[in-house]
Amino acid sequence: MGTRTFQDLLQLQHTEGRHLCVGLDPDMDKIPSSVGQGTIHSVLFGFGRSIVDATRHVAAVYKPNSAFYEAWGDDGILALRNTITHIHNSAPDVPVILDVKRGEIGNTGEQYAKAAFDYHQADAVTLSPYMGYDSVEPFLRRSEKGCFILCRTSNDGAGEFQDLEITPGVPLYRRVASQVVLNWNKNQNCGLVVGAKRAADISAVRAEVSNLMPLLIPGVGAQGGDLEAAVKAAAGSEGAGLFLVNSSRGIIYASPGSDFAERAGKAAEDLHNQMAAIVRQLQLQHA
Amino acid sequence: MGTRTFQDLLQLQHTEGRHLCVGLDPDMDKIPSSVGQGTIHSVLFGFGRSIVDATRHVAAVYKPNSAFYEAWGDDGILALRNTITHIHNSAPDVPVILDVKRGEIGNTGEQYAKAAFDYHQADAVTLSPYMGYDSVEPFLRRSEKGCFILCRTSNDGAGEFQDLEITPGVPLYRRVASQVVLNWNKNQNCGLVVGAKRAADISAVRAEVSNLMPLLIPGVGAQGGDLEAAVKAAAGSEGAGLFLVNSSRGIIYASPGSDFAERAGKAAEDLHNQMAAIVRQLQLQHA
Repeated sequence: MGTRTFQDLLQLQHTEGRHLCVGLDPDMDKIPSSVGQGTIHSVLFGFGRSIVDATRHVAAVYKPNSAFYEAWGDDGILALRNTITHIHNSAPDVPVILDVKRGEIGNTGEQYAKAAFDYHQADAVTLSPYMGYDSVEPFLRRSEKGCFILCRTSNDGAGEFQDLEITPGVPLYRRVASQVVLNWNKNQNCGLVVGAKRAADISAVRAEVSNLMPLLIPGVGAQGGDLEAAVKAAAGSEGAGLFLVNSSRGIIYASPGSDFAERAGKAAEDLHNQMAAIVRQLQLQHA
Repeated sequence: MGTRTFQDLLQLQHTEGRHLCVGLDPDMDKIPSSVGQGTIHSVLFGFGRSIVDATRHVAAVYKPNSAFYEAWGDDGILALRNTITHIHNSAPDVPVILDVKRGEIGNTGEQYAKAAFDYHQADAVTLSPYMGYDSVEPFLRRSEKGCFILCRTSNDGAGEFQDLEITPGVPLYRRVASQVVLNWNKNQNCGLVVGAKRAADISAVRAEVSNLMPLLIPGVGAQGGDLEAAVKAAAGSEGAGLFLVNSSRGIIYASPGSDFAERAGKAAEDLHNQMAAIVRQLQLQHA
């Protein structure tokens, strides 16, 4: 990684027309048996390494999901760190967003930041906003790192609190977006997580934030969101908005067979090509 | 732990008049040097074991804070697991709340539940509500385990979203409480986290939930909350409400010297005695 910040790397990826976030959710029940039958560490790490090697030509970022490693305790934690090290070594232009969804105050938040940024060497994290500014500040103060705040998530129950109206027409998730823009983004290192399912929500958030604030969009593929609508909403009419679309299962489990890596590479290329074409068209229409 | 549920153990502690949650936040910069200068694992585990041994006669529950272990990667994770194992072995009536503040959907949530309940063998967890019901369901479905949902936290920035009014007079944190009571507590294994600083908030939450729903109250001691007001609000006028007051730094760092364990035991006893007296008085007044 050298001294390049997360923002530098993300801008580089955007300039090169890459918007694909490859989600690493290594579920031991789904990892193809051809990865081998070694230790937990060797299976988790071996699978991740194969996926990275097969997708790094089109990946804009990688997003390992901490839960799938934590489930295996100390062995899993070590596999996560080694997977991130492998990404840094083999794809130095591709930053790593560690998906942890933390949010904790003061001295505790500092410990989580240390875990993500110092032990695991992640370039960015996902964070939960519920506890307010001081619960994310230990992450935000690391100005060279990216912080993606949960805004409107893609799960079925997301609306239970996120869609509650704070003032008429302004649901909680938009208040989160405006707080992030107005008060949390002092180091220009914030992004927002907005699920792919409802393009109107993505548009509402994009309208509230500048093109320089990256939107991380889960929920295409296995979760059923419409790719074209999501990309258009996230990139904006000029195609200039920074965004990342995450796909996990659609790529890493593209095949259960010994061709899993090849098929993962193909699935990643397909998604990359589709997004690049949509963004190019937006930019041409605007030019 | 045998086959006793978290609820059984909590009820047992309540019957015996214990309400003290001993928070284990082992900060390597603050652990007394008399613990020794061994590996990360031996210092973290050795410190926790000493604190547990010195406080288990008055502790109702232990609450290890995952962040302080995660900061040290695989060594820290192993120390956390071994600390919990030590609690189970040496204080089998005292359940363990693993403070993780997670909240994640579907297959990811299941992995976090597996990490907390199966790998670490915790009896309960803390959870963040922002993503809605399906983000906590993988935890709630473990009916023998306790799930403490963040409601009104004790940090300075807590009000940024938690105090926003959803309808006139009803802030978000009270909507969280009512959702938990009405829709999340199907297995009678939910509790709520409400900070000690504002006793009125605790009273508002206690009024919304039955005495059987435990309130976990951080923020006395180092964070400055008024103990008597918090206990009265949490226990209710009959002194019958289940509650736990957490103290971390006030106990575990009671002394920087080689008497740290003895002083931790004394600090825990003092806090236990104060709370027991307040609750007894409430119960006598009501009887």
